Amino acid sequence: VADVAATIEQLLGADAVFRGDPRPYLSDETETRNLVGTCDAVVRPDSPAAVATLVAWAYEHDVPIVARGGGTGYAGGAVPRGGIVVSLERLDRIRSFDPLVWRMHVDAGVTTERVRRTARESGLYFPPDPGAGEQSHIGGNIATNAGGPHAFKYGTTGAWVTGLEAVVPPGEIVRFGGPIRKDVASYDLRSLLVGSEGTLAIVTGAWLRLVPAPEASQSIVAFYANAAAGVEAIETVLGSGLLVAALEYVDAGALAAAPPPFAPGQGEAFAVLVDVDGSAAEVEQLRLAVLEVLADNARVLHAPDGASEQAAVWRWREGMTAGVTALRGGKVSEDIVVPLDRLREAIERTVEIGEAHGLPACSWGHAGDGNLHSTFMIDRTDGLDVERAERAAEALFALAVELGGSISGEHGTGLVKSGHLEQFLPGRGAELHRSVKSIFDPKNLLNPGKKQ
Amino acid sequence: VADVAATIEQLLGADAVFRGDPRPYLSDETETRNLVGTCDAVVRPDSPAAVATLVAWAYEHDVPIVARGGGTGYAGGAVPRGGIVVSLERLDRIRSFDPLVWRMHVDAGVTTERVRRTARESGLYFPPDPGAGEQSHIGGNIATNAGGPHAFKYGTTGAWVTGLEAVVPPGEIVRFGGPIRKDVASYDLRSLLVGSEGTLAIVTGAWLRLVPAPEASQSIVAFYANAAAGVEAIETVLGSGLLVAALEYVDAGALAAAPPPFAPGQGEAFAVLVDVDGSAAEVEQLRLAVLEVLADNARVLHAPDGASEQAAVWRWREGMTAGVTALRGGKVSEDIVVPLDRLREAIERTVEIGEAHGLPACSWGHAGDGNLHSTFMIDRTDGLDVERAERAAEALFALAVELGGSISGEHGTGLVKSGHLEQFLPGRGAELHRSVKSIFDPKNLLNPGKKQ
Repeated sequence: VADVAATIEQLLGADAVFRGDPRPYLSDETETRNLVGTCDAVVRPDSPAAVATLVAWAYEHDVPIVARGGGTGYAGGAVPRGGIVVSLERLDRIRSFDPLVWRMHVDAGVTTERVRRTARESGLYFPPDPGAGEQSHIGGNIATNAGGPHAFKYGTTGAWVTGLEAVVPPGEIVRFGGPIRKDVASYDLRSLLVGSEGTLAIVTGAWLRLVPAPEASQSIVAFYANAAAGVEAIETVLGSGLLVAALEYVDAGALAAAPPPFAPGQGEAFAVLVDVDGSAAEVEQLRLAVLEVLADNARVLHAPDGASEQAAVWRWREGMTAGVTALRGGKVSEDIVVPLDRLREAIERTVEIGEAHGLPACSWGHAGDGNLHSTFMIDRTDGLDVERAERAAEALFALAVELGGSISGEHGTGLVKSGHLEQFLPGRGAELHRSVKSIFDPKNLLNPGKKQ
Repeated sequence: VADVAATIEQLLGADAVFRGDPRPYLSDETETRNLVGTCDAVVRPDSPAAVATLVAWAYEHDVPIVARGGGTGYAGGAVPRGGIVVSLERLDRIRSFDPLVWRMHVDAGVTTERVRRTARESGLYFPPDPGAGEQSHIGGNIATNAGGPHAFKYGTTGAWVTGLEAVVPPGEIVRFGGPIRKDVASYDLRSLLVGSEGTLAIVTGAWLRLVPAPEASQSIVAFYANAAAGVEAIETVLGSGLLVAALEYVDAGALAAAPPPFAPGQGEAFAVLVDVDGSAAEVEQLRLAVLEVLADNARVLHAPDGASEQAAVWRWREGMTAGVTALRGGKVSEDIVVPLDRLREAIERTVEIGEAHGLPACSWGHAGDGNLHSTFMIDRTDGLDVERAERAAEALFALAVELGGSISGEHGTGLVKSGHLEQFLPGRGAELHRSVKSIFDPKNLLNPGKKQ
């Protein structure tokens, strides 16, 4: 097609094609490892029907299409390599909100935080809390099955999606599930789309379920001398049968880059962060039980009072990514998962892999889910550093598989983790994965090169 | 194949083929509507490898294979129409149980109740509670994504399965997920198998996640004058933001068949059953709040004390199926789902559909999930009655679709609800469903005729 943008303008109207600087549409958080894409046009459809028209046109003319939400991904899933970027940002309506039956129906381009805030204003709770909620879209969260700290108690995004509206090649709007809480009438094609990173269909809308907001919550931060002592505390929380809402950790290398206010003191090299929620009485009971467990070998315990102090705990936790990036200017960060009883090994071996590749390494993440954000810090301007980090990441994926885990818990595989399918899903498993792709997208035009 | 049984004996050993009366392997709960199948052999493999060998042999010789768990299904999903019945009953090992990290790894043939009991003995909880837990297998629960009363708070079986081991045609053992709590490395083929009723693969093992058992629970039964008053109470429980564990109802027709001890009194024609759980303090707080809401228009309230009185409430609830069946000797029972705000309409129209077809009708079920067990009572020996009920069921499915719901919430479509795919999943949706079947089972030998 000679002039993609002009052709699409004719098809969808002039305001559907973005004519400004395309650069904000070409990268995501993997820019910290120098990943920037290219595209032929940035299109911003204003309705599911417009998305369907666009997919039909692209399918007819063999033009790749890369769906894009808020661009906060960590795997390059939304980094295009030519073709059309379809930004869902104009699909930003809350289609309906029925607080009395704990339900919301939204466009794919509504931000995560807007869903959470709207729910909260009616006493309800949408639990998924990936970072960057003000920027990330619900559609993007669905595309990666995004997690976050509270996924430990509440599950990842998919657990809160009861239905999807999606455009499936060669250009039809299909609905899987809906405003219902159970459905086993067909194969679970809804779950198949969750986490598929825009490679099977383009999600345009979602039915979400909500729960009553917990009456109270309380955060606790504990510092330990080393990973061994910290992980032991984490295991004791679980082994004591304490159903906390979030159970996070920060290792020594990440602590060194942590923003205020919780700086590690002398001899403190590992932090455990716990959130408990529920009724006020339950929170008080859980808080005391957790404090007792954490205190055992802790060097320092913080149990901040009041909402603003507790918000500070989570800002501190969320600041980890920026802090670690700032250390050397760039980073290669993955999100491997291991069985809970291999957490300590995975934390320690992340650092060893860094050492073996000549790179400072650290990790933090969702301890209760065995989900590590294992990170190699790099100088982005140093090509050798970037290469080293890519090799270190390969070693990390091998470690995850060796420990019986997964190469991705919540970021997806995108561009940066593609090519490992056979490693964790050998033989017929990988074949089935590829066959699923080919029945949804026989021409391989939806986000090609990703999730494979 | 001349003598299927003899050939399989040579392949898997003499004890793998069941030589007794095959009748117990030819039906499930749909026997109440006269559904009984036929088969060429009943095979009971003693290992996943034996299942793989069997599938490979069947695939080579074009012999259908019907996987079978405890035989407690309500949709004829395990009713064979020729071919081999593969009973998983000898795959009954708990492969490992790690209570400290809330995890169990089981063979597919372990009973639901054994999983629940084993968990409970270590202070943990496996929430899925479909009826007939002493007989049903975890593999069967996975095959239908079984629900139960507590699915309202805790979700259906799939929410508790982190990994599956399954035999996929033409005879390979594949593992999807594992002992990990998050995984977004490939398409979610694990969720695709959950609820697929043995039509895509034969599940041989599962990794389950568990939670700490709630400290306390309390059941409440309230009786109302009619469905309008009862459903209003249910809506008020939700609208008040009370996160109860189970929220059930029993309508007038079902109450008439209910076993002791909760017989409806004069002017009582609808029951609401609520279960709350959590810490002791939370349960007390929730119990009072629920009692206040339910009391508003209730004619009678029962809030039984003590564990044995509360167990009696659930035995009463579980006795509903047998009671309703006994009324006329048989029944056609479906499990449609509707959006929560259409519950009253679905309950009332179930009775109207029965009237229009000359059959007494009733319903009970999982109100909080909008999941009705809509039932037409029949005389099984009367062919006309059976025919009428099948037509009534068609009208019921149309109602579910009209109300924006689903034709099955937890029983699956099996044999009795096949043929409706296009009704709720038109166009490309149904095509994708069929394509998924064809990539897993290109020869259509796994449980043919089901889920389509």
